[in-house]
Amino acid sequence: MANQEIFPWKKNPLVLTDVLVQGRRVDICIDEQGFIEAIGEGAGRAGTRAGIPCIEGKGAIAIPGLVNTHTHAAMTLLRGYADDMHLSEWLETRIWPLEAHLTGEDLYWGTRLACLEMIRTGTVAFNDMYFYMQDAARAVQEMGMKAVLSYGFIDLGDPDRREREIRATEELVAAVRRMQDPRIRVAVGPHAVYTVSREGLSWLAEFSRKEQLGIHIHLSETEKEVIDCQVQNGRRPPAWLESCGLLTPRTVVAHGCWLDREECALLGRKSVHISHNPQSNMKLAVNRAMPYPDLIAHGVNVTLGTDGCASNNSLDLFGTMKTAALLQKFFWNQETLLPAADVVAMATENGARALGTGSGRLEPGAPADLLLLSPDHICNIPLHRLESNLVYSCSGSAVDTVLCQGKVLMHERRVPYEKEILAGATKAAADLVRRSA
Amino acid sequence: MANQEIFPWKKNPLVLTDVLVQGRRVDICIDEQGFIEAIGEGAGRAGTRAGIPCIEGKGAIAIPGLVNTHTHAAMTLLRGYADDMHLSEWLETRIWPLEAHLTGEDLYWGTRLACLEMIRTGTVAFNDMYFYMQDAARAVQEMGMKAVLSYGFIDLGDPDRREREIRATEELVAAVRRMQDPRIRVAVGPHAVYTVSREGLSWLAEFSRKEQLGIHIHLSETEKEVIDCQVQNGRRPPAWLESCGLLTPRTVVAHGCWLDREECALLGRKSVHISHNPQSNMKLAVNRAMPYPDLIAHGVNVTLGTDGCASNNSLDLFGTMKTAALLQKFFWNQETLLPAADVVAMATENGARALGTGSGRLEPGAPADLLLLSPDHICNIPLHRLESNLVYSCSGSAVDTVLCQGKVLMHERRVPYEKEILAGATKAAADLVRRSA
Repeated sequence: MANQEIFPWKKNPLVLTDVLVQGRRVDICIDEQGFIEAIGEGAGRAGTRAGIPCIEGKGAIAIPGLVNTHTHAAMTLLRGYADDMHLSEWLETRIWPLEAHLTGEDLYWGTRLACLEMIRTGTVAFNDMYFYMQDAARAVQEMGMKAVLSYGFIDLGDPDRREREIRATEELVAAVRRMQDPRIRVAVGPHAVYTVSREGLSWLAEFSRKEQLGIHIHLSETEKEVIDCQVQNGRRPPAWLESCGLLTPRTVVAHGCWLDREECALLGRKSVHISHNPQSNMKLAVNRAMPYPDLIAHGVNVTLGTDGCASNNSLDLFGTMKTAALLQKFFWNQETLLPAADVVAMATENGARALGTGSGRLEPGAPADLLLLSPDHICNIPLHRLESNLVYSCSGSAVDTVLCQGKVLMHERRVPYEKEILAGATKAAADLVRRSA
Repeated sequence: MANQEIFPWKKNPLVLTDVLVQGRRVDICIDEQGFIEAIGEGAGRAGTRAGIPCIEGKGAIAIPGLVNTHTHAAMTLLRGYADDMHLSEWLETRIWPLEAHLTGEDLYWGTRLACLEMIRTGTVAFNDMYFYMQDAARAVQEMGMKAVLSYGFIDLGDPDRREREIRATEELVAAVRRMQDPRIRVAVGPHAVYTVSREGLSWLAEFSRKEQLGIHIHLSETEKEVIDCQVQNGRRPPAWLESCGLLTPRTVVAHGCWLDREECALLGRKSVHISHNPQSNMKLAVNRAMPYPDLIAHGVNVTLGTDGCASNNSLDLFGTMKTAALLQKFFWNQETLLPAADVVAMATENGARALGTGSGRLEPGAPADLLLLSPDHICNIPLHRLESNLVYSCSGSAVDTVLCQGKVLMHERRVPYEKEILAGATKAAADLVRRSA
């Protein structure tokens, strides 16, 4: 694949010269394994004299790479296919009929398109749940990103279906482990309390404990989910998950709009991570914002996600950062809530902690997962306070260069394979709609 | 100014070939005065054969230019200067002290920076209220945009101050008229019911009636404004404005978050236009969303605005389109409310109607206020439904080319004066902070 070779930097070590980190112009030295070795004024001089390849930062702003903790990446193929509809009608007449025709090849192209969009908007790692995940893994590997991949387990209480879902989960775990790619990890993905039986949830809890796998699940997204769970299981969703053994320090729950105060405390006690998806929640009119004040009061690690492209319809985490800050201020009626620096932390270090991809900070010993932003982009003019600009002014288009574990994924806004991906995904989406017609 | 001459197209007529309008590949012919003459397959052939200059669209998506109906453009200089603070503390300790040091030269640079940002994100016309507006007018004229400019009239009940504000208003009207630039018009700008006395409001109403000027005012932005007006004047803000003669078909009111149903009916009866500013309203935690369902039920023309950069902090109307759709669905708990096509209409034809800049549609006879979007931008891959992509997926970075009344303001994302503006505005912002320290 010829256009993979568009950059001169094939491997590490690598030096970034003259970049702006927390207001200081420094060099960043990256070691052979793609970790940050040193950050400091002139830190790269010895290396560049010794012939280590170098990217000239020319005063670019360096920040940690962003981490998206809730996606269904291949849903990029459904971007804009159906919007502005009642939830049940939208799912039943538009989304599910199309999804029924998805193939592994579609997953491959949709995930590559998602990776391209995430790279172009500064995301280096993501937490993905969907189907045909072996094909998603292949796409992620080619694109050079980090991901935690889970098979979306749905048994609807049917024992035969449960057996098939268990097999699919085991197969994905084996397949990802065979890849032996430290960037790509596997988790279990119980879809939600309303789509997975008690037996299914308990099996996933035990399997994930035994295999030390992450857990990725939707939780308390809508009021209906909470009420139905109470009626069917006699407990609200968090208590129900706890009784099944699914609330662990390896668990990332998505949404959490309808958590009450006591449930926030429970998540805190269990060291569960939460993914806030404000754009999806608003678009689908879930009618309550994730209770951020209660979550931080109980020490929960709050991260950011976009959700899939059918319910957002963008994977640009810069947009999500802004909406998170706006929604929390607006819904909880406090203009001081969730200040910009905390939003940036949610999208970087908190996300990295949830997915186990590193510290999410620019510091020696951390993986070189980082972005260079152009200081001439209009969203950074003037530059009174970087965090404010990142959250309130910039979109992902301000990102110039992306490194993931030291590997250059984008430079000067060029990404390998770009034309091939746009053409392949366009064709896959058109074919999918044709097949489902 | 040498870099004004970066484009080969100096004047009209002009032909755009091979652009996508509502799914058809057509040419757009622009006449000598910058109006659309014809749209159709092969419509440009005769013109290009006759030597009329031509922009090759190469399949680019053409849509009407966006209209921003509420700005304080030069506040770009304050972008990110202070955020996440209590409203009164923010105004009293940060924004007002800085504004007290603004000069006409600052207004010029801040407005140029704003115009550059708006052009880069697809806006062709805006409704601006601030100070030193003669300097703003100079900036707008150089940038080639359309604008309605108003002096922000604030008398705080002080007769001496009122006299000065009346003089400033009259001077701006005279100055803009002297420019004789059909792109630049002038309006009166009573700041709000809580900053302008009954005498001031009535003078402005009478002056605008006599001179047939537009009116631009903040209205019912916060609950406090409504309660205070009721206490001081015995009426809520819309009734108070009506009694002063300020509710007219020439009036654009900004925000309207706290309008009740009867007030929406009043605005409808008076043919008042409203500017929805969802990002500003959320950031400042006004605690209620503009009642869009009631406004459209009463036939009010609803448009979109960004507000100033201190309270947003971006002028990208694509972001505002998305937030408007999300906020209305979320706050009023209806996922079908404000569908994408209606949002696009708010940002184009409704805005154009409010400012009197044309039909805001791509049709013969309309001003050539239009954008070309790259069909290869990832936000348009796949392209199931253009309106969905415009509202939910795209940021302003998808805009490739901008024409305003036939004049090319951006092409291939290059804008005249760009480097000069970024440098000048950076310096103006730094000097302003220094002066106020």
